[in-house]
Amino acid sequence: MNLEMIRAAAKRLEGHVRTTPILTSPFLDEIAGRRVLVKAENLQHTGSFKFRGGWSAVSALDNGALKNGVIAYSSGNHAQGIALAGKAHGAPVVIVMPANAPQIKIDNTRALGAEVVLYDRATEDRDEIGTTIASARGMTLVKPFDDPQVIAGQGTTGLEIARQAAALGVTEAEVIVCCGGGGLTSGIALALASEAPAMRVRPAEPEGFDDATRSLKAGKILRNAALDGSICDAIVTAQPGDLTFPIMQAHCGAGIVVTEQECLTTMGLAFERLKVVLEPGGAVSLAAALFHSDEIKGDAVIAVTTGGNVDPAVFLRALETL
Amino acid sequence: MNLEMIRAAAKRLEGHVRTTPILTSPFLDEIAGRRVLVKAENLQHTGSFKFRGGWSAVSALDNGALKNGVIAYSSGNHAQGIALAGKAHGAPVVIVMPANAPQIKIDNTRALGAEVVLYDRATEDRDEIGTTIASARGMTLVKPFDDPQVIAGQGTTGLEIARQAAALGVTEAEVIVCCGGGGLTSGIALALASEAPAMRVRPAEPEGFDDATRSLKAGKILRNAALDGSICDAIVTAQPGDLTFPIMQAHCGAGIVVTEQECLTTMGLAFERLKVVLEPGGAVSLAAALFHSDEIKGDAVIAVTTGGNVDPAVFLRALETL
Repeated sequence: MNLEMIRAAAKRLEGHVRTTPILTSPFLDEIAGRRVLVKAENLQHTGSFKFRGGWSAVSALDNGALKNGVIAYSSGNHAQGIALAGKAHGAPVVIVMPANAPQIKIDNTRALGAEVVLYDRATEDRDEIGTTIASARGMTLVKPFDDPQVIAGQGTTGLEIARQAAALGVTEAEVIVCCGGGGLTSGIALALASEAPAMRVRPAEPEGFDDATRSLKAGKILRNAALDGSICDAIVTAQPGDLTFPIMQAHCGAGIVVTEQECLTTMGLAFERLKVVLEPGGAVSLAAALFHSDEIKGDAVIAVTTGGNVDPAVFLRALETL
Repeated sequence: MNLEMIRAAAKRLEGHVRTTPILTSPFLDEIAGRRVLVKAENLQHTGSFKFRGGWSAVSALDNGALKNGVIAYSSGNHAQGIALAGKAHGAPVVIVMPANAPQIKIDNTRALGAEVVLYDRATEDRDEIGTTIASARGMTLVKPFDDPQVIAGQGTTGLEIARQAAALGVTEAEVIVCCGGGGLTSGIALALASEAPAMRVRPAEPEGFDDATRSLKAGKILRNAALDGSICDAIVTAQPGDLTFPIMQAHCGAGIVVTEQECLTTMGLAFERLKVVLEPGGAVSLAAALFHSDEIKGDAVIAVTTGGNVDPAVFLRALETL
């Protein structure tokens, strides 16, 4: 993994990715006690940054591989990113999803042209199903984060941050990133190490699912005790990736851990002050920026809000915090 | 009013205005039966396009006028635009608001540094109060739409639309604009007449408050029968402006009238598919694009969503449409 791969991914994404805006509000600055820049990747195609990695991985395939198609397992944002990128490249797409995933997510993935294969979370192993289909059909498996081209795609967010923040007069800041497996976190960290060396990435995670924070502290990969039970489900993974973790170790500051209530309050503030929709997992970074000021240094902080795919019922809970 | 004034306003706004993104979703394209481009001015500073006109008008004042300050009457988006622009220019700002305006709006306007003067909607006349304060303090009154520099500021949205749509391959389209007094509608129409002559602006209005639509049809300025009772309150005005109406007559196509229910459904779709918050009045244009396809021509349509300042209770009604 290196900057050149991120630059090459940016070239492949050009004209297809949305350059998401940096949003600000004096009201948020006041809460945080410093200037807050929000890089709104929830406004990316398919409602999350995952489109970048999906497009990067699919567009890196040769014609033969595209013809055979791509496969991914995901119940959420990665699935939609891969589905849309695959469709645009004319590649068949199979998404392996748990049978009990919300119907709307299954419908959306199908509406984007993907073939959805359902499995029983309790009795079946998605890796096995995925591997079987992949080898039977000669499809390329695109992992959600531990894949060089996926990391490169997510890293293009970092190139944009460096350029957009500089235009706003910010070249020195901590950059808080919602962290699941670390694809986005490591990609942005790599990009900024070259493009904005006075910026430092800090992963943010929800309470109880802070594998990256603990792993960085311990100097080795640690797992989460549980894998469900968080409203921040979109960014809950078992542990940091084998590819992503060394990059995070080399370039990131300490993790920041937020509560679910802080996420809901942040979603309410994003509704009120920024006019954008965040999902709980996509609000973790901004929650850290707003409510963990004492753990952050500098006059400005940048929070990457990573997704907006939230059920109305959960969003209601956020509105109730206002 | 001419293009040069809009270009000059764009220069004054540079580095201060947010270049709002154009958002899209294949799901919206399918509903509309054509490509839908959403120019998301609800993501502008203060949550509405009004910041453009406010900044344009304030920044056009000389130092003496700035020192004396500016005054506006508005219970909503124009007030916040003027307050933020005035604050940034170091100008005192007085906002005349009805005493029964939502407390949050009064608080927000004060938080932006403005002095709020409350009046009783039933017994007092805001024009009289405004004029008295303006002349007593030598302040400049900035009207919400019938002011050349305000129109010029709103027109900068049109310059961005021409450039951004061309980058997406769209040079020919109807451009639907939420229309109150016509400041934004006429400003965009003027800008596009020069910058994208194959585009045509169409004002969109809520049922029962369709003064611009009826006026354009009649060839003369007509008033609305009522002035309240619409959830689209942000864009309800008595009648088109003396400055804005001739520009609309010269450059706009027929108006499109939508129902409140269509606005709420559109707000729900914007939540689900675009991850943005729209207020009812700011959703009128997109509602027209989605649900009045038969009144629109061409392969692509551009909808300018103009604001996102909505109470949670109203937003709830939109979520319930999903």
